[in-house]
Amino acid sequence: MEYVIGMDLGGTTIKLGIVNSEGKIIDSLIYPTLAESNSIDTIYKNMINAVNDLISRNKKIKIDSIGIGSPGVISPDEEKILGISNIPVLNGFPLAKEIEKDFGVPTYIDNDANSAARGEYLFGAAKGKDNFFMVTLGTGVGGAIFINGKLYKGYTNFAGEIGHMIIVTDGKFCTCGNFGCWESYASATAMVKKAKTLVERGYETSLSLYYPELNAKIIVDEARKGDEIAVDVVVEIGKYVGIGIANLINILNPHYVVIGGGLSHAGDILLNEIKHYSKVNTRPFSWDVVDIVMAQLGNQAGIMGSAALALMENTEKKSSKKESNEK
Amino acid sequence: MEYVIGMDLGGTTIKLGIVNSEGKIIDSLIYPTLAESNSIDTIYKNMINAVNDLISRNKKIKIDSIGIGSPGVISPDEEKILGISNIPVLNGFPLAKEIEKDFGVPTYIDNDANSAARGEYLFGAAKGKDNFFMVTLGTGVGGAIFINGKLYKGYTNFAGEIGHMIIVTDGKFCTCGNFGCWESYASATAMVKKAKTLVERGYETSLSLYYPELNAKIIVDEARKGDEIAVDVVVEIGKYVGIGIANLINILNPHYVVIGGGLSHAGDILLNEIKHYSKVNTRPFSWDVVDIVMAQLGNQAGIMGSAALALMENTEKKSSKKESNEK
Repeated sequence: MEYVIGMDLGGTTIKLGIVNSEGKIIDSLIYPTLAESNSIDTIYKNMINAVNDLISRNKKIKIDSIGIGSPGVISPDEEKILGISNIPVLNGFPLAKEIEKDFGVPTYIDNDANSAARGEYLFGAAKGKDNFFMVTLGTGVGGAIFINGKLYKGYTNFAGEIGHMIIVTDGKFCTCGNFGCWESYASATAMVKKAKTLVERGYETSLSLYYPELNAKIIVDEARKGDEIAVDVVVEIGKYVGIGIANLINILNPHYVVIGGGLSHAGDILLNEIKHYSKVNTRPFSWDVVDIVMAQLGNQAGIMGSAALALMENTEKKSSKKESNEK
Repeated sequence: MEYVIGMDLGGTTIKLGIVNSEGKIIDSLIYPTLAESNSIDTIYKNMINAVNDLISRNKKIKIDSIGIGSPGVISPDEEKILGISNIPVLNGFPLAKEIEKDFGVPTYIDNDANSAARGEYLFGAAKGKDNFFMVTLGTGVGGAIFINGKLYKGYTNFAGEIGHMIIVTDGKFCTCGNFGCWESYASATAMVKKAKTLVERGYETSLSLYYPELNAKIIVDEARKGDEIAVDVVVEIGKYVGIGIANLINILNPHYVVIGGGLSHAGDILLNEIKHYSKVNTRPFSWDVVDIVMAQLGNQAGIMGSAALALMENTEKKSSKKESNEK
């Protein structure tokens, strides 16, 4: 049995856990990220403390490797974190390399959307599905593509930026600076924004009881109870999610689509809308062979995903070593 | 030196040629497709005659294989033609298998967009670029994706249906039945339609001299000469082409983008607009490593593409045979 540490680096907290190769979390803990310190030193030392804490609590376990799921994107050489907006001081920092030096075990890093997909592939909804893509519907919209059992990285490691696919030319302004990006219409953020606007306009809706503390879960729950305005919001988000997924199915012809992130807890009421709008916008040949499901790893997705990264990369390393030995 | 026959099956004509492994067309001819006969028998016999004609004109050449570029899509078992709208009687017909039986040489079939990309990869603009996608802007918008030097087929052979990516939610009606598909905005057809509408509205433009016989070449030529309305049309088409290409770059992070089809002859005036709108809509990391170029094979794209299919599939067959012999 292999044991790895999966570390989910977020803007607010670092979640980390020891996970075995069967996908069982042996132990886990949460540390604050200390992003507000804006000091690499502070943030990095705190991270080291977190890992040490976890290791010293589990002295009998030998750690084989460490996986890190990070916001932003990872540089083509798979070392530096780039384009990270919520912990900007980490931009350009070779986090995995430093951790590897300090702990003496192979350490891998990938962005959080890719890690989430790896987690679902090894332990969750996409188990055994070699050709799928995952859509993470949270603050933004992230994505990851699996082809023949491997994460598709693109030419320089930046593939899967599906949240900025334009689905409404000249549409809503997106945080990225463009107009009409998918994530302006299909994220949890977009869902909450829409609901708030409708409450502010004075529509009679149970959502006003929660305003301004609305979130995706509340909206979906109220829709389930029959609140018409909440249903309208769910249908609209489902439509936009569905259209983007249809685009990706038409392009990629996958076997499976996994929906993760905050909206994946919304259950059938949202999933049915997504499926409806995906179906009518997908070419029939490709629609007939694909299934759309919700992610399974839930709150553990971060730790499990980065653990999956460590497990998969370790396996790949060993097999390529074996291959080169055989030659 | 290998010699193959490349056959480009179109709704109006069949173009076929003998091509050597260096990409030289030794001989070629054109037959009518006889689609209007609506008889498999007539169409197929005519095809056989065309191949026989070409072979008997080149008796000294030994043909190693035959490649067919077909409209529609090819079934997951790579045998039957499906979804072919301009020669509907061929739906479900195992064309390659029949040709292989009749001529006794390995015969391969793929859709025309995939074949065009293979042609550009072996002999044209994408030579040596293992990670690229090709966009064919003609009557519709077709596409093909190359990953690590291989055509990406998807889970069941239907990948690359990029023309029906929705870029304007609730936009223009598309022949496929949906609203807002890319090909309703970015094809040569869309370009001509837009120009005609502007002429019909009575704008002062040199395009009216050609009306109603407008085509993409005329529009681009008039734009080059400075006609303002023609320029408007080119800019608008460039914008929509650019947005769709940006979407694909964000998703796939390729090394190269090749633009083929009728609009690829439009030259710099269109290419510059496409590049501009692709750039502003693509994530910077991915934009920095990609180049967008026009296809090089021009009128020979059909024959060269299907020949490339035959050459690539033959090579793959041999190498997989070799591999299994070594085991």
